[in-house]
Amino acid sequence: MTTGADAHPARPEIPIRPLDEAALTAARARQRELVKPAGALGRLEELAIWLAAATGTARPQVIPRVVIAAADHGVAAEEAVSAFPPAVTGQMLATFLAGQGAVTTLATEVGAGLVLVDAGVHADSVPADRTIVRVGIGPSANLATGPALTSAQVAACVDCGRELAAEAALDGVTVLVGGEMGIGNTTPATCLAAALTGRDGAALVGPGTGVDAEGLARKREVVTRALALHGPHAHGPLGWLRRVGGGEIAVLCGLALGAGEHGLAYVCDGVIATAAAAVAVAIAPDLRPRLLAGHLSPEPAHAVLLEHLELDPVLDLGMRLGEGSGAVTALAILRLACAAHDGMATFAQAGVSGRD
Amino acid sequence: MTTGADAHPARPEIPIRPLDEAALTAARARQRELVKPAGALGRLEELAIWLAAATGTARPQVIPRVVIAAADHGVAAEEAVSAFPPAVTGQMLATFLAGQGAVTTLATEVGAGLVLVDAGVHADSVPADRTIVRVGIGPSANLATGPALTSAQVAACVDCGRELAAEAALDGVTVLVGGEMGIGNTTPATCLAAALTGRDGAALVGPGTGVDAEGLARKREVVTRALALHGPHAHGPLGWLRRVGGGEIAVLCGLALGAGEHGLAYVCDGVIATAAAAVAVAIAPDLRPRLLAGHLSPEPAHAVLLEHLELDPVLDLGMRLGEGSGAVTALAILRLACAAHDGMATFAQAGVSGRD
Repeated sequence: MTTGADAHPARPEIPIRPLDEAALTAARARQRELVKPAGALGRLEELAIWLAAATGTARPQVIPRVVIAAADHGVAAEEAVSAFPPAVTGQMLATFLAGQGAVTTLATEVGAGLVLVDAGVHADSVPADRTIVRVGIGPSANLATGPALTSAQVAACVDCGRELAAEAALDGVTVLVGGEMGIGNTTPATCLAAALTGRDGAALVGPGTGVDAEGLARKREVVTRALALHGPHAHGPLGWLRRVGGGEIAVLCGLALGAGEHGLAYVCDGVIATAAAAVAVAIAPDLRPRLLAGHLSPEPAHAVLLEHLELDPVLDLGMRLGEGSGAVTALAILRLACAAHDGMATFAQAGVSGRD
Repeated sequence: MTTGADAHPARPEIPIRPLDEAALTAARARQRELVKPAGALGRLEELAIWLAAATGTARPQVIPRVVIAAADHGVAAEEAVSAFPPAVTGQMLATFLAGQGAVTTLATEVGAGLVLVDAGVHADSVPADRTIVRVGIGPSANLATGPALTSAQVAACVDCGRELAAEAALDGVTVLVGGEMGIGNTTPATCLAAALTGRDGAALVGPGTGVDAEGLARKREVVTRALALHGPHAHGPLGWLRRVGGGEIAVLCGLALGAGEHGLAYVCDGVIATAAAAVAVAIAPDLRPRLLAGHLSPEPAHAVLLEHLELDPVLDLGMRLGEGSGAVTALAILRLACAAHDGMATFAQAGVSGRD
């Protein structure tokens, strides 16, 4: 298979809505007046101020939606980079539909709506449920031997993500979370992390769902091979997304971009979702301040991506499941931050004496 | 004022309920069967297993109550160790009654019930509200010149905390949080931290609500003076609690002990609540596995206390408000942990393929 150079790397002009400076200033001022020592709520204060700036209101509300994009990967089928068989991707979508996956139980507890997207799940394992949004593509090709996606596939996925963000904005959602499911997808995410940050790919490889030492060595070899294959030809973030990405990663890239277009906040999950967000920021750098790092995963590429994006994770709980699970967990903290920001009295309202 | 040696350090025999090994084993087994790679939910898995063991059921529920004990301190009135005037203690109790303090907004968001306790608030600033539980004592004496409390005061406070835990157990509560309000109370907490861990007191002093450099130097001097004054005479944790503690700290010590007696889980907040829990563990070491460190505060004595108790904080968000705010924030994570533990399908139920 040829990997021919990216002649015309498409780089759409996506207008990102800037943060609302007035809301930022007003939220900061409010935090200073609330009945507590200045700064005593730590990160909770910063989160409320950030969401105020991102959503354009001094007293922001967390109205969250989780978009879970699922896809299968040629690299999983052909290179044995995962501890689980590819059929699990579709089986897990069915589990999400039943509300019995990790992310769905967490989303229910935190009051977040859910949208499932088929961005290339094997046709023989994907559920027929009509609520699943379909991009209409099949699994990616093996990124170790050629480009994972075609330009048309990338465009379809990115457009799908952007449209889902637009719909969320119309529905009054203020915070988007991108989750994913795709057996084998830490391999494309690690390739993207290496490509975007210039780091050595093999050093960023982690166990994903839990491959053994042999599997880890195989993953390192695959990532190294893929980067060597595509490096000379790839141009720009969309070129890399096409060559070493995957359907769910492209949808989440579009979702993050759409959050930027429509004035929503976006919470990054683990290594796959954050790789997608990093592609989005490479396309539209103004998106970055709308992103929050929900948590830190132990996958080595995740810390590197967060550092690259200059994002400080809210949680560090050793979570490494993906699905959006870490980001949804962080939504609980964001909710608390906004509850305090909105519900606390000021010193004046409460009649509480100020500092001596 | 004499500080005479503690002739008969009362050390009540408090029977702590052991963790439930059967529930622990069953919860661990369940986590291994849930539809995710083993360990992939990280700390969330450990939290669910811990709560199972603490509350004696394989699928535990978070039914939380926050007990906020408030007290004033002679050391605040006489040694100017706080950035805020003592009247703020009672004013904040009124703010909590109105639901407009940080901890009350957080508790409402996370669905936790609240109990307020007057453990020695100045009579001229405490609200008259009948829902406040009254220990019936006044502010502590200045710990820098003599014992802060009498033995009878300590006993009344500890008994109050234990009774509140007993009531909570009768009401079906599974998780207790101890919060506090007391202008000046990082000074007694820091003295206790030094006394219990053997560390140098001055090195553990932090800014509390935000004293300036001069105030910090004064706090260091006060802590050093108090430890030198009482060190030769104090015996045991209850002796130290009497000499350098405070009403709210003694109530929270009793509350933690009561959680142990009645088979509840107990979430520690910041430096003051954790100092109280450390006194409780010194009295009844079997209590320790029932404790969870909700968060890490930047107050230097807090990290030292957590290390002493061998507790790993769930959150590190730079929170330093007290009131129970950090522990209540951690309740949201505990809730999510239990939601996933209870709501997820097993591999068998979901029909999802296992590892290759």
